[in-house]
Amino acid sequence: MREWTIHGGRLAEAQLHYRDAPTPWLDLSTGINPEPWPGADALTFDWARLPDDAALRQLEAVATAYFGARGPQVLALPGTEFGLRGLATLGLPAPFRHVWPGYRTHAEALPGSVPVSFDAAIELAGQGGTIVLANPSNPDGRLLAPADVMALAAVLARSGGWLVVDEAFIDAQDAGSIVPLLDGTEPVLVMRSFGKFFGLAGVRLGFAVGPAAMIARWRATVGSWPLSAAAIAIGTAAYGDSGWIASTRAALFERAAALDRVLRRHGLEPIGASPQFRLVACEASALFDRLARVGILTRPFDYDPRWLRLGVPASRGDLARLDRALAGG
Amino acid sequence: MREWTIHGGRLAEAQLHYRDAPTPWLDLSTGINPEPWPGADALTFDWARLPDDAALRQLEAVATAYFGARGPQVLALPGTEFGLRGLATLGLPAPFRHVWPGYRTHAEALPGSVPVSFDAAIELAGQGGTIVLANPSNPDGRLLAPADVMALAAVLARSGGWLVVDEAFIDAQDAGSIVPLLDGTEPVLVMRSFGKFFGLAGVRLGFAVGPAAMIARWRATVGSWPLSAAAIAIGTAAYGDSGWIASTRAALFERAAALDRVLRRHGLEPIGASPQFRLVACEASALFDRLARVGILTRPFDYDPRWLRLGVPASRGDLARLDRALAGG
Repeated sequence: MREWTIHGGRLAEAQLHYRDAPTPWLDLSTGINPEPWPGADALTFDWARLPDDAALRQLEAVATAYFGARGPQVLALPGTEFGLRGLATLGLPAPFRHVWPGYRTHAEALPGSVPVSFDAAIELAGQGGTIVLANPSNPDGRLLAPADVMALAAVLARSGGWLVVDEAFIDAQDAGSIVPLLDGTEPVLVMRSFGKFFGLAGVRLGFAVGPAAMIARWRATVGSWPLSAAAIAIGTAAYGDSGWIASTRAALFERAAALDRVLRRHGLEPIGASPQFRLVACEASALFDRLARVGILTRPFDYDPRWLRLGVPASRGDLARLDRALAGG
Repeated sequence: MREWTIHGGRLAEAQLHYRDAPTPWLDLSTGINPEPWPGADALTFDWARLPDDAALRQLEAVATAYFGARGPQVLALPGTEFGLRGLATLGLPAPFRHVWPGYRTHAEALPGSVPVSFDAAIELAGQGGTIVLANPSNPDGRLLAPADVMALAAVLARSGGWLVVDEAFIDAQDAGSIVPLLDGTEPVLVMRSFGKFFGLAGVRLGFAVGPAAMIARWRATVGSWPLSAAAIAIGTAAYGDSGWIASTRAALFERAAALDRVLRRHGLEPIGASPQFRLVACEASALFDRLARVGILTRPFDYDPRWLRLGVPASRGDLARLDRALAGG
């Protein structure tokens, strides 16, 4: 497996490697919503000035309302990836553990972090330390009930530990978020992503949600002007577009159900509850190669040769193209 | 002195405080070039996709050429402020010192950093550790000869120390940069800023330049996709616009000379060699207030009540407005 295949969105590398593939490529290598919030191109940005502090606070206020955060504080960051890399600077308590399989960066976020299963994480929570997990999980799409996540947080808290919950893919299923359940005193950090649900990963916008003192410490390490003028303007407008948000949630589930029907028709059982991606168990390397030859980019995993993750096609045409590709060869 | 006055660019706070001031305000509170590179609005950005790794590498290649970096490596970051805050994560050697007076964030970049004069820094370099300084200095605009900076770096290096040179304002006087003198083995990090010379601070783009191993370590802490699609596109195009760069260098010096004539006419002796800002020694609080009442925002400093920094007005009209304001009241 080539190194570039284990990152999502590496379309340029794929095009170099599979030069005979038909164009345009169909990029199913990420879980980013392929039908983005449509308002970005109509906005204008004041590139010339340092972004206004009041505008940044307004974005955080709109995000706070969208997340349903009543107790904890919200910190805007230039992408969830940046946020996860920042965890190492916050003085979180050792030992460090991350639920695995999971998002690759979780394994690199805290030094010496040990991969554990979710069941093992529950067992180990009584020892304290810091546990990082995603809900829904990525790549397997397992969605934990908020009560179960809160119960894990409570056990950790009693031992002086911290829980970090990466809710990067929760937007479509916001009833699964623990943010509305937090009163702001719990030793819990929640990471939120803007680009995945809103389909605007190029904006680079994410958030950390947590107790006031921890968020204040984090804000100090980030310094002034963490976001571009565009990230502030686009984020503020998009989080306030409740009509688009509601219709997109419905559309994502419809499209995922249509993908499931296609996968099952070709003997692939879809795994996962997130409507933004599906995992299938197969001879992943062979299927990755077969799809890439016809210009469809998917996502294998170096730690499990059976797994292939597919983003959910946006249109009937794209789904039909995947259908034909799975049938052929 | 109110807290917001000691940051540049806090125009919204100024407008709230001086409600009767005429609008629009003339913002001279930063050293950002008020005549920005004009190409940003004509560019289109692919917000929907994760920024392509090859595009990021292309930006770094263009920046490498623009900086004249032959030996050291270049790392793109979402703003110099972010870069300075990241210094604390790199394992730089203690004790930490920063040349003062200087840029506020230098005092906060490394834990427990001690302020020293430039002369004291030369004396102390033989003790090793890490010294952070700006060239040209901000707010006083002192421009050190590259040979003097390299000599300081050499003394530090012999003692196992590191030098961090913030060249955020060097672009107009690029012969002052040490980057072309580095072979990439020296324990030296240079910070570069995009927004100040190109007048596009809202883009949030900066760079670290240094030895390959240190830059690789830093790149790992930054993670994937550190920049927005817009920062990559705007930076790549602007650094390649050699015609605009040359004419802007000339224009900045002409405008600074015109500002100097106005300041001297009102008994204010301009301090500093950067054509993007001037420092004056005066009763700073009173002059700040007098200018703010007529809608001109300048920059006082809480650690020296005599100092007021003024950005260089872009147009004859703006300069005439400052001239009238200095004459009145």
